[in-house]
Amino acid sequence: MIRKLAVIGVGLIGGSLARALRKAGEVREIVGCGRGKANLEKALELGVIDSYTHDIGEAVEGADMVFLAVPLGAMKDAFAAMKGHLAEDAVITDGGSSKASVVADAEAAFGELPSNLVPGHPIAGTERNGVEASFAELYEDRRVILTPTETTVPEATARVRAMWEACGAEVSEMSVEHHDEVLAATSHLPHMLAFGLVDALARMKENDEIFRYAAGGFRDFTRIASSNPIMWRDVCVANGPALSRMLSAFAEEMNELAQTIAAGDGDHLLEVFSRAKEARDRYVDGLQTEQSSE
Amino acid sequence: MIRKLAVIGVGLIGGSLARALRKAGEVREIVGCGRGKANLEKALELGVIDSYTHDIGEAVEGADMVFLAVPLGAMKDAFAAMKGHLAEDAVITDGGSSKASVVADAEAAFGELPSNLVPGHPIAGTERNGVEASFAELYEDRRVILTPTETTVPEATARVRAMWEACGAEVSEMSVEHHDEVLAATSHLPHMLAFGLVDALARMKENDEIFRYAAGGFRDFTRIASSNPIMWRDVCVANGPALSRMLSAFAEEMNELAQTIAAGDGDHLLEVFSRAKEARDRYVDGLQTEQSSE
Ligand SMILES: NC(=O)c1ccc[n+]([C@@H]2O[C@H](COP(=O)([O-])OP(=O)(O)OC[C@H]3O[C@@H](n4cnc5c(N)ncnc54)[C@H](OP(=O)(O)O)[C@@H]3O)[C@@H](O)[C@H]2O)c1
Ligand SMILES: NC(=O)c1ccc[n+]([C@@H]2O[C@H](COP(=O)([O-])OP(=O)(O)OC[C@H]3O[C@@H](n4cnc5c(N)ncnc54)[C@H](OP(=O)(O)O)[C@@H]3O)[C@@H](O)[C@H]2O)c1
Repeated sequence: MIRKLAVIGVGLIGGSLARALRKAGEVREIVGCGRGKANLEKALELGVIDSYTHDIGEAVEGADMVFLAVPLGAMKDAFAAMKGHLAEDAVITDGGSSKASVVADAEAAFGELPSNLVPGHPIAGTERNGVEASFAELYEDRRVILTPTETTVPEATARVRAMWEACGAEVSEMSVEHHDEVLAATSHLPHMLAFGLVDALARMKENDEIFRYAAGGFRDFTRIASSNPIMWRDVCVANGPALSRMLSAFAEEMNELAQTIAAGDGDHLLEVFSRAKEARDRYVDGLQTEQSSE
Repeated sequence: MIRKLAVIGVGLIGGSLARALRKAGEVREIVGCGRGKANLEKALELGVIDSYTHDIGEAVEGADMVFLAVPLGAMKDAFAAMKGHLAEDAVITDGGSSKASVVADAEAAFGELPSNLVPGHPIAGTERNGVEASFAELYEDRRVILTPTETTVPEATARVRAMWEACGAEVSEMSVEHHDEVLAATSHLPHMLAFGLVDALARMKENDEIFRYAAGGFRDFTRIASSNPIMWRDVCVANGPALSRMLSAFAEEMNELAQTIAAGDGDHLLEVFSRAKEARDRYVDGLQTEQSSE
């Protein structure tokens, strides 16, 4: 049972954690924190939080669990603001989509890597934002990756694991670097392609007509291009090296595919498409059906 | 009212047209044609067709409407096989995803461009195949593009238009070249990216793990990679010039985006992502919600 949960950033991710823990009866008190008034008032009204403050130091006072769910670019200042205000038994965790940057930000803000920091990432989401988009079931049967650092104490990791399990999630652990590589491939790269494609079409002459003849396949393919631009800017900056490497390697492969098409090499095309279909049918169909932006 | 409809290729596209026209009461007799026995027997059993033959010449005998719905690579032989067997008042149309190749195939097979040929393309589909995947509602509120050639007689175009409208579709006309450009952008290019991405991930070491951490956004993004590899090989070969040009231009843009990410230029990234989100929210959301592979 969590005594006091401080949620810094009561949006889709933070709000859904608060709702899920409340629903599970695993938390006594929830304090929200953010910059704006409207979203926090809404969170109060919806019963997602019990009170709020705009002051991070105040929010974490007495909290045994601190959850950061702000865009990655806001993590460093948030860590700095909680310094000196944390309770003895506080555990700090987060939901950021990239992990090396969060670890670096914590180290910079605290002057050392706190032993009670458990970086984390729920592989769940939608393309909507704010507390009104949050719901208690978001994490049910979804994966959460924890990336404890070399200084993280096992007890802190165990408490964060228990928190996510109470929300119905399946928790796994991996290194920070491995997380950032895997997520660059499965989430960050597809988002770049979807944003890039829609942007390219929007810049074409007659883009009105082009979108008019786009059917359902296009709609699904580009759904993730409706995601929050600020969040994704921050993901790109945070996971820049792994993502830019992967994106330029993929661009090179698409160039080769363009040459194969220009050459009319049907056998090679059939091989690529068959391998892809086989992999998708095997690995992806059969996963959860809920929509997500990650 | 169609007297006799010959459907060459009784799969998703051909089977759905047959079902829709039957449901609308707009056809008296439907003959199916294909290579295999199993699919045609199934079509008979489901009441999609009244009879079948493996001989295209026989199938079109006495038909006032001939619909070709075979993969693009099979169009030329199909045209050649119907030569000399067509009724006086026959109109020929097709559902191929690319149009210049169909026109060239017809010209090659008949020795000239038939005046009763109305090339067409329903912008509707799913990633499943065969007559069992077909359904009468596939074309309801979907767009169908007709690309009559300079030799097509207006009466033939009018009859094909009336046929699709009876299925609930919205029909528009454009030039062959324009069709192939627009569809390269909205359908063929996204399919290449989805097939290419899944194939790239499948070839990575630890691909098992990579797919394990792929969530709902990935599932939607890659749905079209479960499409029929033979159909898509044929689309690539048929629309090679337009598609390869567009794919390599897109690869170049992705290379530039990779550099922007490597440089950490957040302002530029935010601009691209915001423009894309704005375009998708405006143009795509609010379209039909049905899934499609096109
Ligand atoms: N969306 C997804 O699919 C998804 C999935 C997994 C992980 N994540 C990660 O989860 C985190 C939150 O994403 P989200 O989707 O929940 O976004 P969200 O719905 O927009 O919520 C973010 C919250 O943080 C607050 N905030 C924004 N900028 C801030 C700043 N500069 N300083 C302090 N607070 C700020 C906002 O409230 P105020 O504007 O009132 O400050 C807002 O309520 C991000 O790190 C993201 O990478 C997202
Ligand atoms: N799927 C889509 O989303 C979609 C959307 C719009 C347009 N299209 C176009 O529609 C056409 C048909 O696609 P579909 O999705 O309906 O495919 P499908 O379900 O696989 O049906 C194709 C049919 O054509 C027959 N066929 C296959 N190869 C043949 C060959 N070499 N010679 C003669 N018959 C052959 C097959 O029967 P047998 O094996 O028994 O011969 C099969 O029943 C394609 O030109 C495609 O570009 C597809």
